Amino acid sequence: MITIASDFGTPYPAAMKGVILQRTDTRLVDIAHDFPRQDVRAAAFWLREVLPYYPPATHLVVVDPGVGTDRDAVVLRAGDHALVGPDNGVLRPVARELAADGPFEAYVIDDAEIGPIEPTTGASAPSAPSAIGSGSGEGDGDGDGEGPASNTFHGRDVFAPAAADVHDTGRETLEALDYLSKAPAENLVDLELPVPTISDDRAEGEVLVVDGFGNVITNVPGRFLEGRDRIGANDESVPVGETFAAVPEGEQLATVGSHGYVELDVNQGRGDDAFGIEPGDRVVLEGFE
Amino acid sequence: MITIASDFGTPYPAAMKGVILQRTDTRLVDIAHDFPRQDVRAAAFWLREVLPYYPPATHLVVVDPGVGTDRDAVVLRAGDHALVGPDNGVLRPVARELAADGPFEAYVIDDAEIGPIEPTTGASAPSAPSAIGSGSGEGDGDGDGEGPASNTFHGRDVFAPAAADVHDTGRETLEALDYLSKAPAENLVDLELPVPTISDDRAEGEVLVVDGFGNVITNVPGRFLEGRDRIGANDESVPVGETFAAVPEGEQLATVGSHGYVELDVNQGRGDDAFGIEPGDRVVLEGFE
Amino acid sequence: MITIASDFGTPYPAAMKGVILQRTDTRLVDIAHDFPRQDVRAAAFWLREVLPYYPPATHLVVVDPGVGTDRDAVVLRAGDHALVGPDNGVLRPVARELAADGPFEAYVIDDAEIGPIEPTTGASAPSAPSAIGSGSGEGDGDGDGEGPASNTFHGRDVFAPAAADVHDTGRETLEALDYLSKAPAENLVDLELPVPTISDDRAEGEVLVVDGFGNVITNVPGRFLEGRDRIGANDESVPVGETFAAVPEGEQLATVGSHGYVELDVNQGRGDDAFGIEPGDRVVLEGFE
Repeated sequence: MITIASDFGTPYPAAMKGVILQRTDTRLVDIAHDFPRQDVRAAAFWLREVLPYYPPATHLVVVDPGVGTDRDAVVLRAGDHALVGPDNGVLRPVARELAADGPFEAYVIDDAEIGPIEPTTGASAPSAPSAIGSGSGEGDGDGDGEGPASNTFHGRDVFAPAAADVHDTGRETLEALDYLSKAPAENLVDLELPVPTISDDRAEGEVLVVDGFGNVITNVPGRFLEGRDRIGANDESVPVGETFAAVPEGEQLATVGSHGYVELDVNQGRGDDAFGIEPGDRVVLEGFE
Repeated sequence: MITIASDFGTPYPAAMKGVILQRTDTRLVDIAHDFPRQDVRAAAFWLREVLPYYPPATHLVVVDPGVGTDRDAVVLRAGDHALVGPDNGVLRPVARELAADGPFEAYVIDDAEIGPIEPTTGASAPSAPSAIGSGSGEGDGDGDGEGPASNTFHGRDVFAPAAADVHDTGRETLEALDYLSKAPAENLVDLELPVPTISDDRAEGEVLVVDGFGNVITNVPGRFLEGRDRIGANDESVPVGETFAAVPEGEQLATVGSHGYVELDVNQGRGDDAFGIEPGDRVVLEGFE
Repeated sequence: MITIASDFGTPYPAAMKGVILQRTDTRLVDIAHDFPRQDVRAAAFWLREVLPYYPPATHLVVVDPGVGTDRDAVVLRAGDHALVGPDNGVLRPVARELAADGPFEAYVIDDAEIGPIEPTTGASAPSAPSAIGSGSGEGDGDGDGEGPASNTFHGRDVFAPAAADVHDTGRETLEALDYLSKAPAENLVDLELPVPTISDDRAEGEVLVVDGFGNVITNVPGRFLEGRDRIGANDESVPVGETFAAVPEGEQLATVGSHGYVELDVNQGRGDDAFGIEPGDRVVLEGFE
């Protein structure tokens, strides 16, 4: 099984799937392709929340604002899972989770050794402006002259074939892939989600993400709400509820979300609008003893 | 085969899929995850229009504004299909359809007997704020202290495992699932889509839903348009066409949609904008004899 | 394998999948269902860029502003692939590509011979307003009285069953499908993406599409940028970069996209906003020698 996550929207992920399906016929599962664009931290959060619910799998992740720069492309083996994506930190929180905070193994992809990734036509160039270009003499339009991988779509040209190969080779024997070289895990880019400051009756944290319902997910663990009926949230006093329906429709509340963190929500409405906060904003919660 | 429908957007459905794939390797098919948020009636309409085109399957449906309240979680067996979701009426119109208006069987899920649903790590808590929490002493962040199911994500913690189990056990032998208890179908929450009032030359109905093209789908059966070239629709006179292209681009028309109801549309434009109506609004159609 | 592409959004593609899965159990892959509404040219572009990365497959495409008119429904066999969709040109650029500019075979679907496509209930009508209609005496609501295919949803009623049959029959023996008749390919509607005018230091082209990141994809082959450090783009002077990250965050650049064309982009921003252009707009690029 290969899962696929990106901030690509459509139809770019479909090109990645085609490349994978040229190499393997395993099950493909989409995690999401509408992660906030180029927001490595939000993707890292969601992947850490979602991927641990999967059986052992190869997870392909492309949220990659540095595509085409010298950032590495990596494969991590964490627990029974493998993660394939850019070395920008996006894979680290979920890798720690899948490895149960134990060690994990890291490999760097030599992308010059992958490919070339070619469309299934008679044409030899990646992608195919030839139908147009041939009419006006410009050749194949592939002007970068630097080898098989495009500079802007490593999802298709590097990560997709690598994920297919990792799956096919088997996560236990990654050494068999000659374009992978083992790398010291401590040299990889790390990413830690921000840690809140918590005392008995006060928590200073941050908005990690806002989900599609408008639920504001903070980094304050849900335990802060234990035993409280009301809290102050950025100077607004709101009830603590175990469910959205604990308050009337349209009213604000604080609850513990499915990921275990304090959420600031509105029953059948948008918490982000009601509280006027967005990802990255500071959140101060105050408990009234 | 398990189909999955929700108003979750992403990436929550991916967590549900992981839970299912831990338990079964059947085919998963997405129906939609962008149903209007917490709109039970719209989801009920679309499910009734779409699911009958499937071969026998288990259908997982999560449009659940009452999540975490005492509303039941249910399994319905209707014809050769099974439906799994909240007992809020969303499953009833399609169940009637799949059962060809005959009887169907209902089971209530004892959700305390499902699970616990755990991520595939060494951690024992559902979801995993421990990577953060462990650095600042808050424990596992799972503050609800009420058992395995979260209060806000029964899709992942109750409905997904139940759907997988229903599939694996077989729809014919649901009694084998010890957390299901047979329930009298007449005790379930019902939902009827609104019925129009129709005379020879006048129909008073309602907008059921607006699709992504802006087509306004009413609850007036298409037969009302038979033999008419023009109708009045909320005091606007519009032609009746068999296809969108029966009128010039950008012009309004009434037609019979693929579901058999009168639609108010614009050829290559949005009917909802042109007619100024939205779901729930009243629609008066008048035939000119 | 059957791939599916449309401008339908949701949940209409799910009805198509149900119809297909009634007939075959092959793998289904979504290409995209959010192509710009009824924009045949944009869909033709994206299909040509994406489908050639797939192994041999049957590709179902429904971007069909003329649904219900007398436009034909067709099957094209191009290389090892088959394409199923409306005869409005949307299939032609990718067919040329898959056939490596060689000949391809075309068949016209006699849609009166397909079907009827029926939901899996006791009801005999396509779609099922009977649950409502039966309560108020309007009959089955299916007012068109013209046979099995709806006039507005050929995706479900014509193209989906045809794609399933093409897959099941085998792309090599399409003659076995008695509702297909061989057609001279030159009689089909053609569509050519616009060709730019290029001289040594000037290219006059057009915006083909804008992707979800806001990248402006022109029809000027990437070779135009070879050896240049800066170009003029509609009178703005911008640097040429091999990667988005070649310029500071938020700044404009011209680059060669993954499809081989000149793109006008912003590093971690939207090129369409920055350059003030949209699909169909004229683009003049000037090289400074």
